[in-house]
Amino acid sequence: MKPVKVGLLGLGTVGGGTVNVLARNGEEIARRAGRAIQVVQASARDLNKQRICPTERIRLTTDSMEVVNNPEIDIVVELIGGNSVARDLVLKAIANDKHVVTANKALIALNGNEIFEAAHKQGVMVAFEAAVAGGIPIIKAIREGLAGNRIEWLAGIINGTGNFILTAMSDEGRPFAEVLADAQRLGYAEADPGFDVEGIDAAHKLTILASIAFGIPLQFDKVYTEGISKITPEDIGYADRLGYRIKHLGIARRTAEGIEMRVHPTLIPRRQLIASVDGVMNAVLVRADAMGPSLYYGAGAGAEPTASAVVADLVDVVRALTTDPNNRVPHLAFQPDAISSVPVLAMEEAKTAYYLNMDAADRPGVLGEIATVLGDAGISIEAVVQPEPPRGAARARLILLTHRVHERQMNAALSKLSTLEAVLGPVTRIRVEHLNGD
Amino acid sequence: MKPVKVGLLGLGTVGGGTVNVLARNGEEIARRAGRAIQVVQASARDLNKQRICPTERIRLTTDSMEVVNNPEIDIVVELIGGNSVARDLVLKAIANDKHVVTANKALIALNGNEIFEAAHKQGVMVAFEAAVAGGIPIIKAIREGLAGNRIEWLAGIINGTGNFILTAMSDEGRPFAEVLADAQRLGYAEADPGFDVEGIDAAHKLTILASIAFGIPLQFDKVYTEGISKITPEDIGYADRLGYRIKHLGIARRTAEGIEMRVHPTLIPRRQLIASVDGVMNAVLVRADAMGPSLYYGAGAGAEPTASAVVADLVDVVRALTTDPNNRVPHLAFQPDAISSVPVLAMEEAKTAYYLNMDAADRPGVLGEIATVLGDAGISIEAVVQPEPPRGAARARLILLTHRVHERQMNAALSKLSTLEAVLGPVTRIRVEHLNGD
Repeated sequence: MKPVKVGLLGLGTVGGGTVNVLARNGEEIARRAGRAIQVVQASARDLNKQRICPTERIRLTTDSMEVVNNPEIDIVVELIGGNSVARDLVLKAIANDKHVVTANKALIALNGNEIFEAAHKQGVMVAFEAAVAGGIPIIKAIREGLAGNRIEWLAGIINGTGNFILTAMSDEGRPFAEVLADAQRLGYAEADPGFDVEGIDAAHKLTILASIAFGIPLQFDKVYTEGISKITPEDIGYADRLGYRIKHLGIARRTAEGIEMRVHPTLIPRRQLIASVDGVMNAVLVRADAMGPSLYYGAGAGAEPTASAVVADLVDVVRALTTDPNNRVPHLAFQPDAISSVPVLAMEEAKTAYYLNMDAADRPGVLGEIATVLGDAGISIEAVVQPEPPRGAARARLILLTHRVHERQMNAALSKLSTLEAVLGPVTRIRVEHLNGD
Repeated sequence: MKPVKVGLLGLGTVGGGTVNVLARNGEEIARRAGRAIQVVQASARDLNKQRICPTERIRLTTDSMEVVNNPEIDIVVELIGGNSVARDLVLKAIANDKHVVTANKALIALNGNEIFEAAHKQGVMVAFEAAVAGGIPIIKAIREGLAGNRIEWLAGIINGTGNFILTAMSDEGRPFAEVLADAQRLGYAEADPGFDVEGIDAAHKLTILASIAFGIPLQFDKVYTEGISKITPEDIGYADRLGYRIKHLGIARRTAEGIEMRVHPTLIPRRQLIASVDGVMNAVLVRADAMGPSLYYGAGAGAEPTASAVVADLVDVVRALTTDPNNRVPHLAFQPDAISSVPVLAMEEAKTAYYLNMDAADRPGVLGEIATVLGDAGISIEAVVQPEPPRGAARARLILLTHRVHERQMNAALSKLSTLEAVLGPVTRIRVEHLNGD
């Protein structure tokens, strides 16, 4: 059979990795897909730049629109990133009747509803496995592998930079800023690290995962997002004494009232497999009604792991070329006319347990006052740690673990606590998830 | 669209689970698949037996051939097990132009080549996700999610009973026979446990995984299989002191000389994520050239986890109904005319590291004699542990870890060691895998 012809938009890390993987494993890929997959054209900003891949057999251009309009090309692979130029190119490729593969999480999270509607009308496929957790086939696992299940919740370590920093802070007892500077030197963190450490990147990915898990539209603006920059080695140490590790999780949960979507630092029990996912690695834990828990682990970034997902999508698209468009795997796992309007909850309505860390006056009755405030807000305490204060100190450190309550209740209790004369300074609040049931 | 009509062969644990999942999640499944999936007929040996699922809306029969010949039925789900009757039924279903979903690992491992050839000729699909690792979508992950990769090796905990027993032995320091008796009381092990603890079940699953990973025919008879009944709490303890855990792994590896396929107890480094997979849970670690390592974890058995995979296969088959048969995902991942004839290696040609545990005479020069035998066979020693012997003992316990060599070299060294007057009694040999590179 004729080779399938591919045009690449962007020839940086992932683009170069994709060219290399397709060349190195071309024979094996053709043995799987039933036909060869050939990159015939690619766009790049600077044609004279040093590349990680050979480009002799690829027609290069600085004009991405030329690739999108090339009648020879069957599938356009978008690896530009961002959601302005990329959106225009992808919509134009769809209008030109081309299938699209993309690794662009921002584009899918922010413009996916519009893009999938256009693709559905045109009868073409848009595949985006590489947009979440790099090479881990998590989109496929949820959308196809768990298709018989009602998915209850998922929780993922879906930003490698953040996990690298938290792991190093935990292993070495060093503060956030120091470890971040190291990560930047090693190339694991960008010069502007906000996207990673403030959770925006994870929120993009969580938006996509929640949508395919629950059959809801993509709703990035409803994700609650909190970064890891305020986590201290001290909190990591107290969490450890209590049997927990702190991870930056993206969590999506189905409740009777609606869907929770949130990205924040989270204490999780050390005995959970996902608590041992360290360094730049990613993992997603999915809880589904028939399957129970399942976990998917691997590299969440990098040239070749991301290329692994891009090429898997290419093979999928090739295999589905002859399928009646209405019978293909739906973009968001559920048929377009079966997307649910179940609401996404505001963070105040989310339910979780809490770790609280505060300085309190070291005198009789203080724990009672604090416990009363929590009790009045309907919050019950699961564990208290009060480390021996330094000799002569007038303040005591108090660590509390609570049972699960609505965030609203905790917000009310925290603002009341801040008015207590016995509570000295701000209270640190980190959410806790046991990840073992509902 | 009209519902897809399904006939079940067997209405035991998995059959009942499948009926329950399809009923409970019917609406959600139809939202994904685009049409309803309806069980219209089922066969069972005893129609009066108490079932875990309602059967009012299913026509029951004791004659499985009636289901296979029912013209109303689009997809036959085979859940009888074994490979004599099941083989005849599946081949007849294929001849009748029906698609087949099966959870039967023995059938696929032993008769898969014949079955897939028949299905390919007839243009129907045979799906078997439930045959390996229960609900974990590992077939899909390897066959589709990693389709861009050259897979280097995979290692799996793919028998829950065996893992339950090893975990309990490790946690409680109790011997194999005692823990097995407990597992039988709890229903985690069969009255005849041979299939599980001797590794036959794992070898069936490994046969399937190796085939889809490397594009080779199913070759069950070439799997080297060793069970866990000889593992002692003492060996588990020494392994722990050296930083290892003992797991019953199925390993398939591509080498320059051919494919290794082996199931045996294995020491693996404690820091590997898969070393923390405990109890009845399953996990498969896959090393692929572009992706690097990825791991898939979940329940490997049970009514609903297995039903999760059966229903995922049903949805896959429904989605691919309109696909040109030559464009579907090939049964063994690679196109039938692209299956490789690369040889499977005999166990003597496999390469691995070793843990050796022996009693030796407690006199000067003994370690030297033993090390010389190993050195003469080309085996170098990575670590030695010689625990303090009890006061007055004439023998010393000696634990050795070796570097990787061919099994042939180790066999030769072991037979030489057994002739040494200084080596008292048999030498325990357990293989060691670091799971971190080639």
